[in-house]
Amino acid sequence: MRSSGSRPRVVIIGGGFGGLYAARALKHEPVDVTVVDRTNHHVFQPLLYQVATATLAPTDITAPIRWLLRGQHNARVLMAEATHIDVAARRVVCDAGALTLDYDYLIVAAGARHSYFGHPEWEKIAPGLKTMDDAIVIRQRFLLAFERAEKAATDAERQRWLTFVVVGGGPTGVELAGMLPLIARRTLPPEFKNVDPATSRVLLFEGGPRLLANFHAELGERARQDLTELGVEVRTGAIVSKLERGAVWVGSEPIAAGTVFWAAGNEASPLGQSLGAPQDKAGRVKVLPDLSIPGHPEVFVVGDQAEMVSRGKPVPGVAQGAMQSGPWAARNIVRLIAGRSTAPFNYLNKGDAATIGRYRAVFQFPGFNLSGKPAWWFWLLLHIMYLAGFRNRAIVLIEWAYSYFTYQRGARLITAGRIAEGG
Amino acid sequence: MRSSGSRPRVVIIGGGFGGLYAARALKHEPVDVTVVDRTNHHVFQPLLYQVATATLAPTDITAPIRWLLRGQHNARVLMAEATHIDVAARRVVCDAGALTLDYDYLIVAAGARHSYFGHPEWEKIAPGLKTMDDAIVIRQRFLLAFERAEKAATDAERQRWLTFVVVGGGPTGVELAGMLPLIARRTLPPEFKNVDPATSRVLLFEGGPRLLANFHAELGERARQDLTELGVEVRTGAIVSKLERGAVWVGSEPIAAGTVFWAAGNEASPLGQSLGAPQDKAGRVKVLPDLSIPGHPEVFVVGDQAEMVSRGKPVPGVAQGAMQSGPWAARNIVRLIAGRSTAPFNYLNKGDAATIGRYRAVFQFPGFNLSGKPAWWFWLLLHIMYLAGFRNRAIVLIEWAYSYFTYQRGARLITAGRIAEGG
Repeated sequence: MRSSGSRPRVVIIGGGFGGLYAARALKHEPVDVTVVDRTNHHVFQPLLYQVATATLAPTDITAPIRWLLRGQHNARVLMAEATHIDVAARRVVCDAGALTLDYDYLIVAAGARHSYFGHPEWEKIAPGLKTMDDAIVIRQRFLLAFERAEKAATDAERQRWLTFVVVGGGPTGVELAGMLPLIARRTLPPEFKNVDPATSRVLLFEGGPRLLANFHAELGERARQDLTELGVEVRTGAIVSKLERGAVWVGSEPIAAGTVFWAAGNEASPLGQSLGAPQDKAGRVKVLPDLSIPGHPEVFVVGDQAEMVSRGKPVPGVAQGAMQSGPWAARNIVRLIAGRSTAPFNYLNKGDAATIGRYRAVFQFPGFNLSGKPAWWFWLLLHIMYLAGFRNRAIVLIEWAYSYFTYQRGARLITAGRIAEGG
Repeated sequence: MRSSGSRPRVVIIGGGFGGLYAARALKHEPVDVTVVDRTNHHVFQPLLYQVATATLAPTDITAPIRWLLRGQHNARVLMAEATHIDVAARRVVCDAGALTLDYDYLIVAAGARHSYFGHPEWEKIAPGLKTMDDAIVIRQRFLLAFERAEKAATDAERQRWLTFVVVGGGPTGVELAGMLPLIARRTLPPEFKNVDPATSRVLLFEGGPRLLANFHAELGERARQDLTELGVEVRTGAIVSKLERGAVWVGSEPIAAGTVFWAAGNEASPLGQSLGAPQDKAGRVKVLPDLSIPGHPEVFVVGDQAEMVSRGKPVPGVAQGAMQSGPWAARNIVRLIAGRSTAPFNYLNKGDAATIGRYRAVFQFPGFNLSGKPAWWFWLLLHIMYLAGFRNRAIVLIEWAYSYFTYQRGARLITAGRIAEGG
């Protein structure tokens, strides 16, 4: 591809929090930035579960990456899939060779997918929740289950379609499981005549001993209580041994469930393999303290794709980790261009949160914990602030207010998902 | 399927304007109504082109059919595909036999698809605009074209991706073609670095001698002027003879175009064939004056699927035709149940409209015509009134105001359209 000058070329792979924030940090620097993403949009990932549960519309929490960077004259955006990195030639190969990008500096921020623990075939049965396409698939499955129950021929079939299983008790699993009973019990019942959606069962399976393993034990316990009150059947120490259409096995016990969602484990983007750097079991690239990789001070890996360490402690795989490591890598590139040495990443823990159902949340800050309603209001405030970069803020607020006060879900659209064959 | 009593069973196929309005007309009648649709949502079809051009989000103009009928205690909704009608047994077969519905009265309102004039293989190249899935595919193709131009390797490829063809100069073609240059010229340019979207070409091909053939000649001419001012190249008498990826042939002239949209001709749902009633060339069922079919006074066909006559004149295939014929058939069923004779359909022409670009429209009323800005404001007012049944009205207004004043398009999301493998 053409480059617009002789300034250092910075290629950023990924338009999520890590890549987008890295690009923005380079706004006033004498570099040419290229952001490559296989989609055209940035997603506000912490609210994906609200799209998956038909509360927000997909466009409420997405914005075109090129729109977000439209005012940044040193940045261009390409919608392409980075398929290989040639660190020796300093080149990113995209779209299976149709496009190549030469770089002087590289930031890899391609994120992670869910891990199916050696059973990739389970993904078709139990979709995960990492991208907007995932959220649309989950929304479709969730809504279709009630439609199928309504026209089921037998009681067993009806009951199966009214049983939902969420696998994984981290924040995503807890947030997803917390919304399902609300919709089944409060929103849908008046609309169905053959079945009563309020009789739906929602089960949350966690393989470990407690929910929210990365939070304080007290908050994990609180989440369990809140979910149980909402009607979710929480089972810890429940390891899924087998999945097939219509059934989940926990150990040797089969459970008939028409719909299964997956929120267990992460696996970094396979793109990291081509870097030749050491990786951990989850495929995350083990970066040096300054976020670069051994032997290649010009290559940085950030966000969910990296195993990062800050002051001797591991950095958690959360939005904040990506939002902070992306710009940090960008500033290290600026330091290198200026002939200075790089600085080790210094992660600032701003707290972790998970919402539960309609108005409860758990919040963990470095010094204290918060739960219940106050935590929920704080969570709402924070997320509205972070969404500020989006044009959709006002609409998101209206949608939230609407669904909060009326229990109605505005975005209950089942699309067929026809594959575009364009051009 | 179970029926809730011994009252007459009315089955309605289709949850569009015809079917939905028919169901509502039966709200206080002593019948059991079943509405069958292969999607879960009703679409406000006149605004589909705004979704296709990324101005409105899909959820802005859709609502679940069962939500729209939630307060109607004598109606149930089933998401299923009616695949055959057995008029002798008075039975509708759905989902290839998995579900059957016995009826005492039937209203068929399954609508129409675009006609490809004997070339069904063209649909993959040039998608039409009848359903929400269609609109999402068109939005995806339209937005992807600019992404592909931005990373094109050659000038020819770049120019091809910046050329858009709309086939068909009826209201849908005119409305779609009118929006494309606005977005290409006003919204996108600041975001692209390698190409200038403002250099895009939009061509509108109409096989007949003028645009909007069903409107007064004066309005067709006005539409041509308005489109030309917006930068659309309008060609009448231009018959498409061949379509392949990347090129359209008009007669023997090939035109390189990366994206082609189809808005020419209609073909009624093939479901009408199983009725055994006479059909016209477009597959529409020729109904009797009371909207029933010969030999089966208990079977009615309405909306785009029917060739209807009102006081000796053909009823146009527009939203109003469906909105009025659906309830008319419903009231004829009520008359039959009461032992009275049916009434012949009396279509009230409330006017036809087409919008052109940002603030122009043409409006044709029985006594007079309206065009330009006044027509646009009138159109806006009318459509907001009709959207009143939807919860999304406030949000649609905000979206419109936003895109009207800023030229920004809020719904520019390219989804991958992964097919759900659910259940």
